Amino acid sequence: MEKRQLLYEGKAKKVYATDDESLCVVAYKDDATAGNGAKRGSIAGKGAVNNRVTNHLMRLLEQNGVPTHFVRQLSERESLVKKVDIVPLEVIVRNIAAGSLAQRLGVPEGTRLAAPVLEHCYKNDALGDPMVNEYHILAMGWAVREELDTIAQYAFRVNEVLAEVLRGAGIQLVDFKLEFGRTAEGKILLADEISGDTCRFWDEATGEKLDKDRFRRDMGGEEDAYREVLHRLLGA
Amino acid sequence: MEKRQLLYEGKAKKVYATDDESLCVVAYKDDATAGNGAKRGSIAGKGAVNNRVTNHLMRLLEQNGVPTHFVRQLSERESLVKKVDIVPLEVIVRNIAAGSLAQRLGVPEGTRLAAPVLEHCYKNDALGDPMVNEYHILAMGWAVREELDTIAQYAFRVNEVLAEVLRGAGIQLVDFKLEFGRTAEGKILLADEISGDTCRFWDEATGEKLDKDRFRRDMGGEEDAYREVLHRLLGA
Repeated sequence: MEKRQLLYEGKAKKVYATDDESLCVVAYKDDATAGNGAKRGSIAGKGAVNNRVTNHLMRLLEQNGVPTHFVRQLSERESLVKKVDIVPLEVIVRNIAAGSLAQRLGVPEGTRLAAPVLEHCYKNDALGDPMVNEYHILAMGWAVREELDTIAQYAFRVNEVLAEVLRGAGIQLVDFKLEFGRTAEGKILLADEISGDTCRFWDEATGEKLDKDRFRRDMGGEEDAYREVLHRLLGA
Repeated sequence: MEKRQLLYEGKAKKVYATDDESLCVVAYKDDATAGNGAKRGSIAGKGAVNNRVTNHLMRLLEQNGVPTHFVRQLSERESLVKKVDIVPLEVIVRNIAAGSLAQRLGVPEGTRLAAPVLEHCYKNDALGDPMVNEYHILAMGWAVREELDTIAQYAFRVNEVLAEVLRGAGIQLVDFKLEFGRTAEGKILLADEISGDTCRFWDEATGEKLDKDRFRRDMGGEEDAYREVLHRLLGA
């Protein structure tokens, strides 16, 4: 496998073509942004941590009924993944109200929801990734009914699997954002990453935040928080 | 039937108890607000027009499979309705992108949607009536699954019936907001009103706005617009 041209550079990752047109290389950066790019900085070592944490969790999900884009880790910061067209949705699952949802519903951050909540946002930086519902998605043609049903089923399964493994590591899974893609054959795969950049992780005993909220909210200690999650999940 | 104490005063209506505890009197006001109360004013004659237009459309909906709270018109501005507990949701159906949806999706106002879009907002002035989805509603206990299914079915039926009758009057039904209530027996009824305050009506030939957007957007001519819709629908 040979890495070729840069296909895409996002806020936290670069994606490269390879000599196999069905595969890509993902390279994780230390760059961090928040508030739709309003705040920019970096978290030392984040790229390497997120690469390892994502791969560990994707492997686990693949074994538990959620097809993912993950193929194998290539280096500290790089992994080989299946090439997909990203469905232009941020798929969010929430177990506890935090961040924008706590504000939207007018409930205190930390309120446990009576049932897991699934949300969709339209991935569009210029519009600020607005929340939409399934009717908007179908009317705009961003996904079809069958894809939405598959995505919802996978998202709730991800929640079950991740919540359990994190509980075993003394971490509460508050909420998380997923992205899905379509293969050339039209199969839906879990893509993107699963890390402190895309999940809210709270220490089960102390409630301490172990995720990007430390950066978003200028709390400091984000490097340690990311490493702590890695350590608890992989013993590394 | 005897009108008793004021139960509730909203932006455009007052609701009174009666000597029959299963019935209320609705009294329509000329007061108009926009932008969640940021703009306040009045539209001369609006209360009388909205009373008549609402009753005409509710009667038609009742005949076409949508149970409503409407009982009978009492006077120019007052009607008798069944008493319900309002489900705390604004139920919006959209055929054409306009207003907040056009902004949210980044499409020009006037874009026809490929399929009607249903939206839910949580009725809460302090929070600005935030858009929510069915998962939020179920988790917060604002309605149960069966009620949401009934409401969605009725809302799409309302769209079919209203779009047809308005088409016959040379009016395009762009979008509208409904509210539903529960009777003491737990039955879901269409409540609130159906008028230029709660619908976007565009003249089919000219595209002229015949609804509260004239007030919201300081266009003037709102009195004539409301009367025009009444005239086209009821010949009055």
